Amino acid sequence: MDLKKIVRDVHDFPKPGIVFKDITPLLENPEAFQYIVNQVVEKFKKEEIDLIVGIDARGFIFASVLAYALKKGLAIVRKKGKLPYQTISYTYQLEYGEDTIELHQDSIPKGAKVLIVDDLLATGGTANATGHLIQQMGGQVVAMAFIIELNFLKGREKLKDFEVFSLLQYDAE
Amino acid sequence: MDLKKIVRDVHDFPKPGIVFKDITPLLENPEAFQYIVNQVVEKFKKEEIDLIVGIDARGFIFASVLAYALKKGLAIVRKKGKLPYQTISYTYQLEYGEDTIELHQDSIPKGAKVLIVDDLLATGGTANATGHLIQQMGGQVVAMAFIIELNFLKGREKLKDFEVFSLLQYDAE
Repeated sequence: MDLKKIVRDVHDFPKPGIVFKDITPLLENPEAFQYIVNQVVEKFKKEEIDLIVGIDARGFIFASVLAYALKKGLAIVRKKGKLPYQTISYTYQLEYGEDTIELHQDSIPKGAKVLIVDDLLATGGTANATGHLIQQMGGQVVAMAFIIELNFLKGREKLKDFEVFSLLQYDAE
Repeated sequence: MDLKKIVRDVHDFPKPGIVFKDITPLLENPEAFQYIVNQVVEKFKKEEIDLIVGIDARGFIFASVLAYALKKGLAIVRKKGKLPYQTISYTYQLEYGEDTIELHQDSIPKGAKVLIVDDLLATGGTANATGHLIQQMGGQVVAMAFIIELNFLKGREKLKDFEVFSLLQYDAE
Protein backbone atom coordinates (compact mmCIF):
# COMPACT_ATOMS: atom_id res chain seq x y z
CA MET A 1 0.00 0.00 0.00
CA ASP A 2 1.52 3.35 -1.03
CA LEU A 3 0.94 5.35 2.13
CA LYS A 4 2.96 8.32 0.88
CA LYS A 5 0.26 8.99 -1.70
CA ILE A 6 -2.21 9.44 1.14
CA VAL A 7 -0.07 11.62 3.44
CA ARG A 8 -0.80 15.28 2.69
CA ASP A 9 1.85 17.99 2.39
CA VAL A 10 0.71 21.18 4.06
CA HIS A 11 2.93 24.15 3.31
CA ASP A 12 3.84 26.78 5.90
CA PHE A 13 2.54 24.87 8.94
CA PRO A 14 3.19 25.39 11.78
CA LYS A 15 5.56 28.15 10.54
CA PRO A 16 6.35 29.74 7.16
CA GLY A 17 8.79 27.60 5.20
CA ILE A 18 7.86 24.30 6.86
CA VAL A 19 6.21 21.52 4.83
CA PHE A 20 4.09 19.61 7.33
CA LYS A 21 3.34 15.91 6.75
CA ASP A 22 -0.36 15.67 7.56
CA ILE A 23 -1.34 12.15 8.62
CA THR A 24 -5.05 12.83 9.05
CA PRO A 25 -5.90 11.43 5.58
CA LEU A 26 -4.24 8.16 6.67
CA LEU A 27 -6.42 8.03 9.74
CA GLU A 28 -9.60 8.79 7.83
CA ASN A 29 -8.90 5.96 5.40
CA PRO A 30 -9.87 2.71 7.15
CA GLU A 31 -7.69 0.49 4.92
CA ALA A 32 -4.64 2.69 5.41
CA PHE A 33 -5.21 2.89 9.16
CA GLN A 34 -5.53 -0.91 9.52
CA TYR A 35 -2.49 -1.42 7.31
CA ILE A 36 -0.29 0.94 9.33
CA VAL A 37 -1.27 -0.57 12.67
CA ASN A 38 -0.83 -4.11 11.41
CA GLN A 39 2.64 -3.32 10.03
CA VAL A 40 3.80 -1.98 13.38
CA VAL A 41 2.17 -4.89 15.25
CA GLU A 42 3.98 -7.30 12.92
CA LYS A 43 7.28 -5.58 13.73
CA PHE A 44 6.88 -5.76 17.51
CA LYS A 45 4.64 -8.73 18.29
CA LYS A 46 7.57 -11.02 19.09
CA GLU A 47 9.43 -8.47 21.24
CA GLU A 48 9.11 -8.64 24.98
CA ILE A 49 7.11 -5.53 25.83
CA ASP A 50 5.22 -4.71 29.04
CA LEU A 51 3.91 -1.25 28.31
CA ILE A 52 3.31 1.16 25.44
CA VAL A 53 4.02 4.84 26.07
CA GLY A 54 2.25 7.37 23.83
CA ILE A 55 3.42 10.95 23.33
CA ASP A 56 0.90 13.82 23.57
CA ALA A 57 -1.25 14.24 21.48
CA ARG A 58 -1.13 12.58 18.06
CA GLY A 59 1.09 9.87 19.50
CA PHE A 60 -1.90 8.74 21.59
CA ILE A 61 -3.64 7.66 18.40
CA PHE A 62 -1.13 4.99 17.41
CA ALA A 63 0.07 4.16 20.92
CA SER A 64 -3.42 3.23 22.09
CA VAL A 65 -4.17 1.07 19.06
CA LEU A 66 -0.86 -0.72 19.50
CA ALA A 67 -1.53 -1.25 23.20
CA TYR A 68 -4.90 -2.77 22.31
CA ALA A 69 -3.59 -4.91 19.46
CA LEU A 70 -0.60 -6.15 21.46
CA LYS A 71 -2.73 -6.51 24.63
CA LYS A 72 -0.46 -4.24 26.69
CA GLY A 73 -1.09 -1.30 28.98
CA LEU A 74 -0.79 2.28 27.79
CA ALA A 75 0.92 5.11 29.67
CA ILE A 76 0.73 8.67 28.42
CA VAL A 77 3.40 11.36 28.35
CA ARG A 78 2.00 14.87 28.45
CA LYS A 79 3.15 18.44 28.40
CA LYS A 80 3.56 20.00 31.85
CA GLY A 81 0.36 20.51 33.85
CA LYS A 82 -1.91 18.17 31.89
CA LEU A 83 -1.66 15.04 34.03
CA PRO A 84 -3.82 15.09 37.16
CA TYR A 85 -1.81 12.97 39.62
CA GLN A 86 1.76 13.33 40.94
CA THR A 87 4.25 13.39 38.11
CA ILE A 88 7.93 13.08 37.32
CA SER A 89 9.01 15.66 34.80
CA TYR A 90 11.84 16.12 32.33
CA THR A 91 12.91 19.45 30.84
CA TYR A 92 14.74 19.59 27.53
CA GLN A 93 16.13 22.25 25.23
CA LEU A 94 14.38 23.41 22.09
CA GLU A 95 15.91 25.54 19.34
CA TYR A 96 14.63 28.56 21.26
CA GLY A 97 13.76 27.98 24.91
CA GLU A 98 12.81 24.72 26.56
CA ASP A 99 9.92 22.34 27.09
CA THR A 100 8.84 19.99 29.89
CA ILE A 101 7.13 16.62 29.64
CA GLU A 102 5.61 14.58 32.46
CA LEU A 103 4.64 11.04 33.33
CA HIS A 104 2.59 9.96 36.33
CA GLN A 105 5.06 8.89 39.01
CA ASP A 106 3.59 5.37 39.19
CA SER A 107 3.13 4.77 35.48
CA ILE A 108 6.44 2.98 34.79
CA PRO A 109 6.92 -0.12 36.95
CA LYS A 110 10.60 -0.80 37.77
CA GLY A 111 12.18 -2.83 35.00
CA ALA A 112 9.16 -2.47 32.70
CA LYS A 113 9.99 -3.03 29.03
CA VAL A 114 8.61 -0.05 27.20
CA LEU A 115 7.78 0.72 23.57
CA ILE A 116 7.54 4.48 22.96
CA VAL A 117 5.18 5.52 20.17
CA ASP A 118 4.67 8.80 18.33
CA ASP A 119 3.31 9.66 14.92
CA LEU A 120 6.28 11.63 13.63
CA LEU A 121 10.04 11.69 14.18
CA ALA A 122 11.31 15.17 13.36
CA THR A 123 14.26 16.49 15.40
CA GLY A 124 13.61 13.88 18.10
CA GLY A 125 13.66 16.24 21.08
CA THR A 126 10.46 15.04 22.72
CA ALA A 127 11.12 11.36 22.01
CA ASN A 128 14.63 11.63 23.43
CA ALA A 129 13.32 13.33 26.57
CA THR A 130 10.64 10.63 26.90
CA GLY A 131 13.23 7.87 26.58
CA HIS A 132 15.48 9.37 29.22
CA LEU A 133 12.58 10.09 31.57
CA ILE A 134 11.48 6.45 31.35
CA GLN A 135 15.02 5.22 32.04
CA GLN A 136 15.29 7.61 34.99
CA MET A 137 12.05 6.09 36.36
CA GLY A 138 13.53 2.58 36.13
CA GLY A 139 11.99 1.49 32.84
CA GLN A 140 13.79 -0.15 29.94
CA VAL A 141 13.19 1.37 26.51
CA VAL A 142 12.88 -1.55 24.08
CA ALA A 143 12.37 0.71 21.07
CA MET A 144 10.73 3.83 19.72
CA ALA A 145 8.23 3.49 16.89
CA PHE A 146 7.14 6.28 14.56
CA ILE A 147 4.81 6.25 11.60
CA ILE A 148 6.76 8.93 9.72
CA GLU A 149 10.45 9.82 9.94
CA LEU A 150 11.84 13.02 8.42
CA ASN A 151 15.40 11.80 7.74
CA PHE A 152 16.69 15.25 6.83
CA LEU A 153 16.04 16.49 10.39
CA LYS A 154 18.41 13.80 11.74
CA GLY A 155 16.22 12.82 14.70
CA ARG A 156 17.76 9.35 14.61
CA GLU A 157 21.15 10.84 15.48
CA LYS A 158 19.68 12.49 18.55
CA LEU A 159 18.06 9.17 19.50
CA LYS A 160 21.38 7.28 19.32
CA ASP A 161 20.81 5.74 22.77
CA PHE A 162 17.67 4.00 21.53
CA GLU A 163 16.43 1.49 18.96
CA VAL A 164 14.37 3.44 16.39
CA PHE A 165 11.75 2.10 13.98
CA SER A 166 9.77 4.09 11.44
CA LEU A 167 7.30 2.98 8.80
CA LEU A 168 7.69 5.80 6.25
CA GLN A 169 10.85 7.78 5.63
CA TYR A 170 11.24 11.07 3.80
CA ASP A 171 14.72 12.04 2.63
CA ALA A 172 13.82 15.62 1.73
CA GLU A 173 10.95 18.04 2.16
CA MET B 1 -14.91 -6.14 35.97
CA ASP B 2 -15.21 -3.36 38.54
CA LEU B 3 -13.67 -0.49 36.64
CA LYS B 4 -14.60 2.06 39.28
CA LYS B 5 -12.07 0.45 41.62
CA ILE B 6 -9.36 1.24 39.09
CA VAL B 7 -10.36 4.84 38.27
CA ARG B 8 -8.43 7.19 40.53
CA ASP B 9 -9.93 10.22 42.29
CA VAL B 10 -7.57 13.17 42.17
CA HIS B 11 -8.62 16.03 44.43
CA ASP B 12 -8.27 19.68 43.41
CA PHE B 13 -7.50 19.05 39.74
CA PRO B 14 -7.66 21.02 37.51
CA LYS B 15 -8.97 23.53 40.09
CA PRO B 16 -9.42 23.56 43.90
CA GLY B 17 -12.65 21.82 44.88
CA ILE B 18 -12.82 19.56 41.81
CA VAL B 19 -12.48 15.78 42.15
CA PHE B 20 -10.98 14.60 38.89
CA LYS B 21 -11.66 11.07 37.63
CA ASP B 22 -8.25 9.92 36.45
CA ILE B 23 -8.51 7.19 33.82
CA THR B 24 -4.78 6.60 33.40
CA PRO B 25 -4.81 3.57 35.76
CA LEU B 26 -7.44 2.02 33.44
CA LEU B 27 -5.18 2.54 30.46
CA GLU B 28 -2.13 1.13 32.22
CA ASN B 29 -4.02 -2.04 33.14
CA PRO B 30 -4.12 -4.23 30.00
CA GLU B 31 -7.14 -6.27 31.15
CA ALA B 32 -9.15 -3.15 31.99
CA PHE B 33 -8.20 -1.48 28.73
CA GLN B 34 -9.23 -4.52 26.65
CA TYR B 35 -12.44 -4.85 28.63
CA ILE B 36 -13.45 -1.21 28.13
CA VAL B 37 -12.78 -1.25 24.41
CA ASN B 38 -14.58 -4.55 23.94
CA GLN B 39 -17.63 -3.29 25.84
CA VAL B 40 -17.93 -0.25 23.58
CA VAL B 41 -17.29 -2.34 20.45
CA GLU B 42 -20.05 -4.71 21.57
CA LYS B 43 -22.43 -1.78 21.92
CA PHE B 44 -21.77 -0.31 18.46
CA LYS B 45 -20.67 -3.18 16.23
CA LYS B 46 -24.14 -3.61 14.72
CA GLU B 47 -24.75 0.10 14.17
CA GLU B 48 -24.18 1.58 10.75
CA ILE B 49 -21.13 3.79 11.25
CA ASP B 50 -18.79 5.25 8.63
CA LEU B 51 -16.40 7.24 10.74
CA ILE B 52 -15.24 7.68 14.33
CA VAL B 53 -14.52 11.21 15.53
CA GLY B 54 -12.17 11.60 18.50
CA ILE B 55 -12.01 14.68 20.69
CA ASP B 56 -8.62 16.23 21.59
CA ALA B 57 -6.66 14.83 23.43
CA ARG B 58 -7.68 11.93 25.70
CA GLY B 59 -10.59 11.22 23.35
CA PHE B 60 -8.03 10.17 20.73
CA ILE B 61 -7.10 7.21 22.91
CA PHE B 62 -10.46 5.50 22.77
CA ALA B 63 -11.57 6.87 19.40
CA SER B 64 -8.57 5.40 17.63
CA VAL B 65 -8.91 1.98 19.23
CA LEU B 66 -12.59 1.91 18.33
CA ALA B 67 -11.83 2.94 14.75
CA TYR B 68 -9.32 0.10 14.54
CA ALA B 69 -11.55 -2.50 16.20
CA LEU B 70 -14.61 -1.50 14.12
CA LYS B 71 -12.48 -1.11 10.96
CA LYS B 72 -13.58 2.48 10.39
CA GLY B 73 -11.73 5.71 9.66
CA LEU B 74 -10.82 8.19 12.38
CA ALA B 75 -11.21 11.96 12.18
CA ILE B 76 -9.86 14.21 14.90
CA VAL B 77 -11.39 17.33 16.46
CA ARG B 78 -8.80 19.71 17.85
CA LYS B 79 -8.58 23.00 19.65
CA LYS B 80 -8.09 26.00 17.36
CA GLY B 81 -4.78 26.19 15.53
CA LYS B 82 -3.69 22.57 15.98
CA LEU B 83 -4.86 21.08 12.67
CA PRO B 84 -2.54 21.78 9.74
CA TYR B 85 -4.94 21.91 6.78
CA GLN B 86 -7.99 24.11 6.09
CA THR B 87 -10.54 23.74 8.85
CA ILE B 88 -14.14 24.46 9.73
CA SER B 89 -14.46 25.79 13.25
CA TYR B 90 -17.15 26.07 15.89
CA THR B 91 -17.07 28.45 18.84
CA TYR B 92 -19.03 27.72 22.00
CA GLN B 93 -19.56 29.32 25.37
CA LEU B 94 -17.82 28.19 28.53
CA GLU B 95 -18.71 29.19 32.08
CA TYR B 96 -16.24 32.03 31.67
CA GLY B 97 -15.32 32.94 28.10
CA GLU B 98 -15.45 30.73 25.04
CA ASP B 99 -13.59 28.01 23.20
CA THR B 100 -13.18 27.00 19.57
CA ILE B 101 -12.83 23.52 18.07
CA GLU B 102 -11.90 22.63 14.51
CA LEU B 103 -12.20 19.79 12.03
CA HIS B 104 -10.40 19.55 8.69
CA GLN B 105 -12.83 20.81 6.06
CA ASP B 106 -12.73 17.50 4.15
CA SER B 107 -12.86 15.15 7.11
CA ILE B 108 -16.63 14.56 7.21
CA PRO B 109 -18.00 13.21 3.91
CA LYS B 110 -21.58 14.37 3.21
CA GLY B 111 -24.03 12.01 4.86
CA ALA B 112 -21.31 10.16 6.78
CA LYS B 113 -22.62 8.33 9.83
CA VAL B 114 -20.43 9.40 12.70
CA LEU B 115 -19.72 8.06 16.19
CA ILE B 116 -18.21 10.75 18.43
CA VAL B 117 -15.89 9.46 21.17
CA ASP B 118 -14.40 11.09 24.23
CA ASP B 119 -13.14 9.74 27.52
CA LEU B 120 -15.31 11.82 29.85
CA LEU B 121 -18.73 13.46 29.73
CA ALA B 122 -18.71 16.37 32.18
CA THR B 123 -20.79 19.44 31.23
CA GLY B 124 -20.90 18.33 27.59
CA GLY B 125 -19.82 21.62 26.06
CA THR B 126 -17.13 20.26 23.76
CA ALA B 127 -19.14 17.19 22.76
CA ASN B 128 -22.16 19.32 21.95
CA ALA B 129 -20.05 21.68 19.84
CA THR B 130 -18.51 18.68 18.06
CA GLY B 131 -21.94 17.21 17.31
CA HIS B 132 -23.24 20.47 15.86
CA LEU B 133 -20.07 21.08 13.86
CA ILE B 134 -20.37 17.62 12.28
CA GLN B 135 -24.04 18.21 11.43
CA GLN B 136 -23.15 21.60 9.94
CA MET B 137 -20.58 19.84 7.73
CA GLY B 138 -23.24 17.40 6.47
CA GLY B 139 -22.50 14.46 8.73
CA GLN B 140 -25.02 12.45 10.70
CA VAL B 141 -24.25 11.88 14.38
CA VAL B 142 -25.23 8.28 15.16
CA ALA B 143 -24.21 8.56 18.81
CA MET B 144 -21.69 9.87 21.28
CA ALA B 145 -19.76 7.40 23.40
CA PHE B 146 -17.95 8.21 26.64
CA ILE B 147 -16.08 5.98 29.03
CA ILE B 148 -17.09 8.00 32.10
CA GLU B 149 -20.18 10.16 32.65
CA LEU B 150 -20.45 12.55 35.60
CA ASN B 151 -24.24 12.54 35.95
CA PHE B 152 -24.28 15.39 38.46
CA LEU B 153 -22.91 17.80 35.85
CA LYS B 154 -25.94 17.09 33.62
CA GLY B 155 -24.01 16.86 30.36
CA ARG B 156 -26.70 14.55 28.98
CA GLU B 157 -29.22 17.39 29.19
CA LYS B 158 -26.98 19.61 27.11
CA LEU B 159 -26.59 16.77 24.60
CA LYS B 160 -30.37 16.33 24.20
CA ASP B 161 -30.07 16.46 20.38
CA PHE B 162 -27.90 13.34 20.41
CA GLU B 163 -27.88 9.70 21.41
CA VAL B 164 -25.53 9.35 24.37
CA PHE B 165 -23.80 6.21 25.65
CA SER B 166 -21.47 5.94 28.62
CA LEU B 167 -19.81 2.94 30.23
CA LEU B 168 -19.38 4.20 33.81
CA GLN B 169 -21.67 6.66 35.56
CA TYR B 170 -21.02 8.63 38.72
CA ASP B 171 -24.00 10.14 40.53
CA ALA B 172 -21.95 12.28 42.88
CA GLU B 173 -18.37 13.39 43.33
